[in-house]
Amino acid sequence: MKTIEFREFHTPASGIFFRAKRLLLSEKTPFQKMEIYETASHGRVLLLDGLVQTTEKDEFFYHEMLVHPAMTSHPRPRDVLIIGGGDGGALREVLRYPIRSSLLVEIDARVIEVCRKYFPGLATSFGNKRAEILVDDGSRFIRETDLRFDVVLVDSSDPVGPSAVLHQKAFYVALKRCLRPGGIIAAQAGAPLFHLEHLRKKRLFLKMLFSFALYYLGPVPTYPGGLWCYVFLSDQVDPRKGPRKNVPRKLKYYNADVHHGAFALPEFLKDRRRR
Amino acid sequence: MKTIEFREFHTPASGIFFRAKRLLLSEKTPFQKMEIYETASHGRVLLLDGLVQTTEKDEFFYHEMLVHPAMTSHPRPRDVLIIGGGDGGALREVLRYPIRSSLLVEIDARVIEVCRKYFPGLATSFGNKRAEILVDDGSRFIRETDLRFDVVLVDSSDPVGPSAVLHQKAFYVALKRCLRPGGIIAAQAGAPLFHLEHLRKKRLFLKMLFSFALYYLGPVPTYPGGLWCYVFLSDQVDPRKGPRKNVPRKLKYYNADVHHGAFALPEFLKDRRRR
Repeated sequence: MKTIEFREFHTPASGIFFRAKRLLLSEKTPFQKMEIYETASHGRVLLLDGLVQTTEKDEFFYHEMLVHPAMTSHPRPRDVLIIGGGDGGALREVLRYPIRSSLLVEIDARVIEVCRKYFPGLATSFGNKRAEILVDDGSRFIRETDLRFDVVLVDSSDPVGPSAVLHQKAFYVALKRCLRPGGIIAAQAGAPLFHLEHLRKKRLFLKMLFSFALYYLGPVPTYPGGLWCYVFLSDQVDPRKGPRKNVPRKLKYYNADVHHGAFALPEFLKDRRRR
Repeated sequence: MKTIEFREFHTPASGIFFRAKRLLLSEKTPFQKMEIYETASHGRVLLLDGLVQTTEKDEFFYHEMLVHPAMTSHPRPRDVLIIGGGDGGALREVLRYPIRSSLLVEIDARVIEVCRKYFPGLATSFGNKRAEILVDDGSRFIRETDLRFDVVLVDSSDPVGPSAVLHQKAFYVALKRCLRPGGIIAAQAGAPLFHLEHLRKKRLFLKMLFSFALYYLGPVPTYPGGLWCYVFLSDQVDPRKGPRKNVPRKLKYYNADVHHGAFALPEFLKDRRRR
């Protein structure tokens, strides 16, 4: 059988490769290059600008760890905002909770359209009556909106490229303004092995902005280094106290033990200033 | 500059690739094919039978997590046995403790010789006066020896190929006989994502043999899936109580928080029978 090989460099001289059965889609949107491959090993794989964003096989690691630590730490989340997340995976996890509303703000309408077609296991919830979809620049949206949220999830791409703004201080200042009292933000923060200096600098300003600004970790096998970093931000809620409410059933990765374990940072990522 | 590309398949259709600056060594020993590459991204990389065993950049994840959970859980480890571990990384970590003796039993003398030459950062301890090296079949050694140990570390290759015997029940029965009362075994157990069925079956017999038979996890970026599984075995010591003694200073990954977090198993690896 003919196979198509594609690869992502994780360093200038190493990375991951896949042998795909088919290229299902390749197009340039106004924002990015989008490709979808069908693979035997990982199911369908979505790449944006050549970087693996999600695979059917291992997307649960990422989406569960982006969403559940924040959602289970909030005593009663009613209204949830997702910035990015056009593949629908974070929204699917959010709607496991009895919330009142969720709003997903994705800059690239084509990501949503394409994932609804090619990733039915992720994009399960775009038609849910508790889900509203807005195609807009998330960074602009949070500066201008009067809406307030209990939980905000930032499901962005990496801190390099078009999503870079979603990793900077001004963005988090604006984001904080959108939180209700007791609110929580969780954001993907990049690869601890490859973005370590960036993470150290970011922690400095996040700790000035929030009483609790804590990195946490989880595996994502197809992301660079296989280990991924997220950040939990709140003025009132310390996530190390553990899940406050029932954890949804039938998850694949997250549970209460994992929640506690995820905040245990390795030596190389410890906040030296707190010792 | 000319580069040499090498790769390891993690599934039949995906894997990791490296662009090396030089092939430093390639030889067939009586036991396996051994290759060492010099890379820009990961320093020197050792492959046995085509599988990445260790890289200078990320070996600390594996060696720290194989050694320290067992060593810190034992109240007073005096004599330590290492099965395999010819690269010297596990021995280096063991000798951070004030033990009386360590014995390393490696089947392939060439691995030791070659790592002493090419991996000086790992093979630091072969000349240590508290370290004895024995070139022998570890499986046979533990069946025949009268020596008893406080901690036994199994630093084997994967559960497929020449190390398969080191993952079977008869091996663990023999290993248990080599433990002093209060003794602890830690062994590498493979990739949870790729050897899940194997891990589930292995847990069944390990729980029959030991009062405490617990899997724990840690990242190893260049191993399949980036997430690695180890097993902690003891009749007296529950590692979830945490480190009993001072954790060595200047580690890169392991600390007391990480110790607790490592035993927090994700949903897909939980022992269903204990719920």
